[in-house]
Amino acid sequence: MGNQKPDNFPVTLMATTPEDGFVLAITLSRLAVKATQPETDALANLSPDCANSADSLIAVSHVVAVHFSTIAQANQYWPDIRPASGESS
Amino acid sequence: MGNQKPDNFPVTLMATTPEDGFVLAITLSRLAVKATQPETDALANLSPDCANSADSLIAVSHVVAVHFSTIAQANQYWPDIRPASGESS
Amino acid sequence: MGNQKPDNFPVTLMATTPEDGFVLAITLSRLAVKATQPETDALANLSPDCANSADSLIAVSHVVAVHFSTIAQANQYWPDIRPASGESS
Amino acid sequence: MGNQKPDNFPVTLMATTPEDGFVLAITLSRLAVKATQPETDALANLSPDCANSADSLIAVSHVVAVHFSTIAQANQYWPDIRPASGESS
Amino acid sequence: MGNQKPDNFPVTLMATTPEDGFVLAITLSRLAVKATQPETDALANLSPDCANSADSLIAVSHVVAVHFSTIAQANQYWPDIRPASGESS
Amino acid sequence: MGNQKPDNFPVTLMATTPEDGFVLAITLSRLAVKATQPETDALANLSPDCANSADSLIAVSHVVAVHFSTIAQANQYWPDIRPASGESS
Repeated sequence: MGNQKPDNFPVTLMATTPEDGFVLAITLSRLAVKATQPETDALANLSPDCANSADSLIAVSHVVAVHFSTIAQANQYWPDIRPASGESS
Repeated sequence: MGNQKPDNFPVTLMATTPEDGFVLAITLSRLAVKATQPETDALANLSPDCANSADSLIAVSHVVAVHFSTIAQANQYWPDIRPASGESS
Repeated sequence: MGNQKPDNFPVTLMATTPEDGFVLAITLSRLAVKATQPETDALANLSPDCANSADSLIAVSHVVAVHFSTIAQANQYWPDIRPASGESS
Repeated sequence: MGNQKPDNFPVTLMATTPEDGFVLAITLSRLAVKATQPETDALANLSPDCANSADSLIAVSHVVAVHFSTIAQANQYWPDIRPASGESS
Repeated sequence: MGNQKPDNFPVTLMATTPEDGFVLAITLSRLAVKATQPETDALANLSPDCANSADSLIAVSHVVAVHFSTIAQANQYWPDIRPASGESS
Repeated sequence: MGNQKPDNFPVTLMATTPEDGFVLAITLSRLAVKATQPETDALANLSPDCANSADSLIAVSHVVAVHFSTIAQANQYWPDIRPASGESS
């Protein structure tokens, strides 16, 4: 389990919008994988036909959810951005 | 593990009701999967007959729970919406 | 991964007692599964004899724990309800 | 996934000591399993010789950790109970 | 899933340093396993050669991370202990 | 499941930047594995060709995410470090 400095790590957890925060969460998920096994693009082995593929994608989605929670808290949940009518449904 | 901007990302984490917040949590779970593997609807491979299907659905439910936690906190748990008598049981 | 409005979603996260909050957490766990695959009662396939059954039940218990954490926080941990002597052990 | 009221649910999340809180966390982990599949003691099928047994126990430990986090927060981490010298190591 | 009082449970979540808090988190992870299946040292079955061993160790590490989060919060993240120059990298 | 003091444990959770905090999170993930099974570099068995390898790496990424959440909170999310324009996307 390597310990290199990950490439291109974001300078800040602050994001302008929830969407930018979500993209940042996806980036953090990927950087931990790269830092652990930098010489292999392990996730590229996730074949769409592989029986485990759906589970792997759900697992990635879980990691993104944890990072997104952190980032949303860092940004105090972007309180000034309010929904247009009917937005969230 | 792709890094595209997910389509149709919600503008805000604010939701009018817990139910709208829950639907938003389901949306976020799905968007992370799409952002990771956009060309495949991997979750469509979850056959109802598949032995692992129940576990996969539980795993999705787990991701939704993490996102719902974030969204509930963003909305300060909707304190003004109180149960009718006997509602929560 | 569907996105329908779940049926019978609770109106509020407020619950009178920890027990009611726990029942609500179980309900939320089930609703995410239903929203994802509404036409199948996937969890009904969890046979008691199935080798994976214990693991599946532990996984459900995990999802309930995450939702219960959210609901307990929403209710500020029910601080006015204090144990009778020896209650919690 | 049943939705019965679990038996013997604790009246409160308040606990006198971290140890009592931990026991409560173990109780909550078990109650979610019972509420989901009341007619089967699925966890009794966890044979000590079973290859998956260690993983199942770690998974149970994970659920306990989530509940303990909730209970510790409910009790404000028992700040008045301080270690004797060298306690925590 | 037993419910005995775990042996040697720590009296407090307070720890002098992050390292002591981490050791405490490892202890809590182990105590939940022991409380669940006291008559078996299930984790001793984790053979170093076993194909699932790495995954099991990662799962243990996950449980430790959840407990460490709780303990770090209990100790308000040890704010008075600041890094020597370059410590955290 | 051993309980030795891990080697080289960081003195503090404080980190100058999010990147340093992320490296610290990776370190904590590794230290829990080492503390549990010190005589084996179990993670070295994660072959890049192994079918489970991607899932293992995602699992490691998950543990890192939990630790990063703790560390980010300890550092109050580094509020003074703000993005350059377009940074987080």
